[in-house]
Amino acid sequence: MNFIQAIENAWKVNDSLVCVGLDSDVEKIPGVLRNSRNPIFEFNRAVVDATAQFVCAYKPQIAYYSAAGAEDDLKMTIEYIHQRHPGIPVILDAKRGDIGATAQMYAREVFDRFGADAVTVNPYMGSDTLEPFLSRDQKGVIILCRTSNPGARDVQDLISNGKKLYQLIAERARDLWNRNNNVLLVVGATYPEELREIRTIVGDMPFLVPGIGAQGGDVKAAVMNGKTAGGTGMIINSSRGIIYAGRGDDFAEAAGKAALELRDEINKYR
Amino acid sequence: MNFIQAIENAWKVNDSLVCVGLDSDVEKIPGVLRNSRNPIFEFNRAVVDATAQFVCAYKPQIAYYSAAGAEDDLKMTIEYIHQRHPGIPVILDAKRGDIGATAQMYAREVFDRFGADAVTVNPYMGSDTLEPFLSRDQKGVIILCRTSNPGARDVQDLISNGKKLYQLIAERARDLWNRNNNVLLVVGATYPEELREIRTIVGDMPFLVPGIGAQGGDVKAAVMNGKTAGGTGMIINSSRGIIYAGRGDDFAEAAGKAALELRDEINKYR
Repeated sequence: MNFIQAIENAWKVNDSLVCVGLDSDVEKIPGVLRNSRNPIFEFNRAVVDATAQFVCAYKPQIAYYSAAGAEDDLKMTIEYIHQRHPGIPVILDAKRGDIGATAQMYAREVFDRFGADAVTVNPYMGSDTLEPFLSRDQKGVIILCRTSNPGARDVQDLISNGKKLYQLIAERARDLWNRNNNVLLVVGATYPEELREIRTIVGDMPFLVPGIGAQGGDVKAAVMNGKTAGGTGMIINSSRGIIYAGRGDDFAEAAGKAALELRDEINKYR
Repeated sequence: MNFIQAIENAWKVNDSLVCVGLDSDVEKIPGVLRNSRNPIFEFNRAVVDATAQFVCAYKPQIAYYSAAGAEDDLKMTIEYIHQRHPGIPVILDAKRGDIGATAQMYAREVFDRFGADAVTVNPYMGSDTLEPFLSRDQKGVIILCRTSNPGARDVQDLISNGKKLYQLIAERARDLWNRNNNVLLVVGATYPEELREIRTIVGDMPFLVPGIGAQGGDVKAAVMNGKTAGGTGMIINSSRGIIYAGRGDDFAEAAGKAALELRDEINKYR
């Protein structure tokens, strides 16, 4: 089963498009966990167990682990999800991109060392730099298209031959990069118009959708504009809104409740 | 002394534009080192000591360390260079790029955890994603402009309003991003015409120039097209051509010889 099949399965089994962003920062996790040997892993495990029945994916953001020297926690988290909740795939948000020989090393990092099921990648350097990821046909390759941040317009909206750069990236994803049926796109919830445009370009290709919650994206607008005809096609990420929903000893329970609420909110518009 | 001053100093003291790319792969380093506790560090240390008088910078490529779980070797390498060869700055080649809160974490990874003096970053996501790096005014921020790989054309050559994307990136680097005088650009040696164009756009802004050696870039064409009026402005990287110049017990000596030869070859055209 490749990544896209795994996601389709998780959408169905849990009736959910929610992805929990494990942007876990040791400075923000509850005091009760801080004395354990692997506080970030313990935090993640509790959040995962409390949310697993309400989500379609987990997405650790590698920068949080790299800044803290917490590679072990990251590896343990992904292993734990695979063992305990085998129906829920894991996206490692790493936004890698480099020349072929180096991209090969990044593919090893993400897929072989950490065991992720999918990775986010940056298309600026061109097709050959995506190849070492695309050739892993069981893995998902999630290409930055229109990101959720305010500055996304700076480069991604430049117009070439009457089309915006993000539209050209979407066309290439559809026409050139998806031969293994393992390509997805990052499209931010903060730009619902662009969600609709890109959906028109790529048909049913799934989107990873950051930007709801702390970044200000509206759930209704995102779902109405980004969904496929079948009412799926989106992996809608929430990080802070779920993992820090509670700050005390009840953090896991609060995370579960927040994931359930987001699932139900999203499902109203599918 | 900020990064650009440190590079200018190293250009002068060692009369060299050479940067050694520490893309050290445990599978390719001499057998004699493989049984040590930190083989990659031991390899790097020997290469660094043999080359330090002939170079202006070192550039470890983080993917090689991340793929191997060799974060300790990377940290030890950078510390060693700073302690033993304090005049030679270290660029961590990581091509990071993400939304603000995440970019902040990447800045911590690169500058605080690993202690690098400069980092390579990807501009696709826009100005706000560069900010957490740019605000570190003592550090160098090396923005991908025109990369050295064959697919660089795919996205970077798209024309918007009569200008290519890499030209627009160069203009923004000059006009918007360089307020702390800590911006540099990546421009590949494999595209000498583009080196000349971008030099015209950005004046004396330094370039990190990958692509000579294994990637096929020509030294003469790169230097003639990329240098500033003062005969500097370039940090010319060679990785495999130096660190694997010899494969036996003489690897360090061979690396020193290769660095010296490259320095002299470059200096013919300055």
